[in-house]
Amino acid sequence: MSPTHRIEALQYARKQAGRFLGDLKAFVAIPSVSTEPDRRADIDRAARWVADYMRGVGIDGVEICPTEGHSVVYGEMLGAGTGAPTVLVYGHYDVQPAGPPDLWKSGPFDPALRGEYLYGRGATDMKGQVMAVLNAVEAVAGTGPLPVNLKFLIEGEEEIGSPSLRLFVESCKDRLSCNVVLNADTGMIAPDQPAIVYALRGLACFEIRLYGPARDLHSGIYGGVVHNPAQVLCELIAGMHDEAGRVTLPGFYDAVRPLAAEERSELARLPMDETFYLDKTGAPLLWGEVGFTPVERTGSRPTLEVNGILSGYTGPGAKTVLPALALAKISTRLVPDQDPGEVREQLLRYLETKAPPTVRWELIDMGGGPASLSRRDSRAVAALGKAMEQVWGIAPLFKREGGSVPAVSILQDLLGIDSLNTGFSLPDDNMHGPDERLHLPTWYRGTEMLIHFFFNLA
Amino acid sequence: MSPTHRIEALQYARKQAGRFLGDLKAFVAIPSVSTEPDRRADIDRAARWVADYMRGVGIDGVEICPTEGHSVVYGEMLGAGTGAPTVLVYGHYDVQPAGPPDLWKSGPFDPALRGEYLYGRGATDMKGQVMAVLNAVEAVAGTGPLPVNLKFLIEGEEEIGSPSLRLFVESCKDRLSCNVVLNADTGMIAPDQPAIVYALRGLACFEIRLYGPARDLHSGIYGGVVHNPAQVLCELIAGMHDEAGRVTLPGFYDAVRPLAAEERSELARLPMDETFYLDKTGAPLLWGEVGFTPVERTGSRPTLEVNGILSGYTGPGAKTVLPALALAKISTRLVPDQDPGEVREQLLRYLETKAPPTVRWELIDMGGGPASLSRRDSRAVAALGKAMEQVWGIAPLFKREGGSVPAVSILQDLLGIDSLNTGFSLPDDNMHGPDERLHLPTWYRGTEMLIHFFFNLA
Repeated sequence: MSPTHRIEALQYARKQAGRFLGDLKAFVAIPSVSTEPDRRADIDRAARWVADYMRGVGIDGVEICPTEGHSVVYGEMLGAGTGAPTVLVYGHYDVQPAGPPDLWKSGPFDPALRGEYLYGRGATDMKGQVMAVLNAVEAVAGTGPLPVNLKFLIEGEEEIGSPSLRLFVESCKDRLSCNVVLNADTGMIAPDQPAIVYALRGLACFEIRLYGPARDLHSGIYGGVVHNPAQVLCELIAGMHDEAGRVTLPGFYDAVRPLAAEERSELARLPMDETFYLDKTGAPLLWGEVGFTPVERTGSRPTLEVNGILSGYTGPGAKTVLPALALAKISTRLVPDQDPGEVREQLLRYLETKAPPTVRWELIDMGGGPASLSRRDSRAVAALGKAMEQVWGIAPLFKREGGSVPAVSILQDLLGIDSLNTGFSLPDDNMHGPDERLHLPTWYRGTEMLIHFFFNLA
Repeated sequence: MSPTHRIEALQYARKQAGRFLGDLKAFVAIPSVSTEPDRRADIDRAARWVADYMRGVGIDGVEICPTEGHSVVYGEMLGAGTGAPTVLVYGHYDVQPAGPPDLWKSGPFDPALRGEYLYGRGATDMKGQVMAVLNAVEAVAGTGPLPVNLKFLIEGEEEIGSPSLRLFVESCKDRLSCNVVLNADTGMIAPDQPAIVYALRGLACFEIRLYGPARDLHSGIYGGVVHNPAQVLCELIAGMHDEAGRVTLPGFYDAVRPLAAEERSELARLPMDETFYLDKTGAPLLWGEVGFTPVERTGSRPTLEVNGILSGYTGPGAKTVLPALALAKISTRLVPDQDPGEVREQLLRYLETKAPPTVRWELIDMGGGPASLSRRDSRAVAALGKAMEQVWGIAPLFKREGGSVPAVSILQDLLGIDSLNTGFSLPDDNMHGPDERLHLPTWYRGTEMLIHFFFNLA
């Protein structure tokens, strides 16, 4: 390894910063929304775009691997040889739905620069993070031999719970063998405070549908004799939390691993107090499970959220209808050692017990995956932490993150390999909401950090 | 009055049946949805269509009277002289929104004949009923001198609670003076059982909006620290009924006039038992306030309905969002002597007491009007009942109806005149829902019944 390689790679990245940003904008412009069946062609286009981009970076054997759902893009760079460690880079090219277009200042798939930010769906979650890794790889490989071996697994189903990933990983475990997984799908605490995420929550998503009368009825003629499914839905959802903010699904907390006193005091050091969360969310007041701090509640305690409800007439003015159907999208965030399948059973039991015979109901499984917890004392964690210090001049904080990356637990389970969870998204990047954005100065620093990491790990 | 006039009028109506149906189809084809601001031009078109049609029937002084909202169409035929009674015909040319087009077999504003029915929004509520009156008037006036004086008040805001009607009636009380109001906006129990409705419920409509975080949030990153407004909405709505199916708004039943034992036993004679309601609604089981029969619950007890709820993501698949906004459309059906304004205060007090400080909320008034109760022993009621016997060969049943016609209580209040509430809609005509329809044999009989009524009343 040439002693100047690292510096040349960093210089390369700085010189190419403008082009990197242009490439990211092209990527964000593809509306690769995995949950919307109408977007299938865009999903395929995004997979091809990533594959072509990887080939352009010099990645070998790039392949678009079909699955039961959306394709996985695979590639590798094994020139560092068997003596060097192998990093499996995980990422996803799919994004969340944009939501109501009128809530966006610029088009969600029409990436726009405003101030220090690039706005667009997927800018931060996680097209920007995927590009940061690919840009770092290009910078290192374009200025000398790669100091580590790399494999790439970029999927298209993360935002729908990675339903095809387990089967894919099972089908090519040998090909995916590695020493560590690099997952850049998490974030920092603030632009000046890097973080390493050692735990991610699991996820189990559902849709509940309640059917009342055979069709929408006149609420005057039939109001008083028919149980309104919208009302029943509200009663069922209201019953899912108790007054202490705890989830009431039978057995929901049975498998939850308690938080050790030592970890609690470590988490208490994070600069994420009530004011932090009030500031980031704009909520009038915080809320949550009694007995836990905000940072504990989002990272280490399971939760149940109503992601959406719909019934009857919701347009302008009034329409006095008694609706035939009511639906809710419900998701639970899980912690070790909760199992998504068991949560489904708990929800089924809850509905069986609580849903009145005046409505018919249906529970639709929308996918998910278990939580993950990684070691904090590995060589790879040290190399990553050092890279962060080299760029930000400050040691990273270790945190649990409330979000979910199913791949992390799938790879932990099938390959036995922990993920390094990092990334450069910020708490106010509006992930999953309107006006999603990426803080560009942090993104450029992220690319440099990854360059350092590859050298540190070697 | 010529002794053959009645027979000639009936023959006229039979001969013109085909044209009458064609005219009705043209009327139904106008999407005069009063609640949708985008339909303003169609509302105006419907008013002009009615005015032109009235002129064609020979009605004098037809005028489109502007109001704060949609216009009232007025006209009169006073040739019978001061010795004859004067009937004020009430009707409305506006309709409910169509709702999801894919739930309709044929286009809601593309009237279609299938079997014995005409399908289309407004076919039964109440364009068909307005046309039945105008057709009957044409048949009588086209074959001889009218035996009664007629005035017409056809408004365009019934489906939004007639917000401009009170002011309009106040502004021209003298012009509207009459002996009885004929309101054909109610219905029958079955095609072989005519009915006279002597009570209508009142209405008070609201929209509740809850605001949580400043924008939709990532449900992983913030799930557990922010009170989800969709969950709060469900809790608030769930709390609006107790386990006995009673509405819990503070003081909601205070003004409710109790049902006399004599009236209860009369209502019990109506052929509207549990099986009737199960059959008409397709609900798995009935539901409602403990201690009252289905017919009592829809006609003589107040209710609160959720007409619609909306929050977060409700498209295909999952989107793990913590929504910023949740809204519900709520309406209450009122009985004598409840006051819509007081109900609004009760709902306000409920929200002030129950809404947690973790959300902001807003209560939007969507209009309404009080209930009405009419005498059952007047000369006009007798004339109407006799006309029903003449056509159906069976005496009408007297019933309370769960629906609301604000005009009835406004005219009762300002003119001191009771309405004859009749009409030819049937319980399975899908009023306010998809596939609204009109039973044509009943509609033709209705026209004949009105012809008899005009002669009986003279």
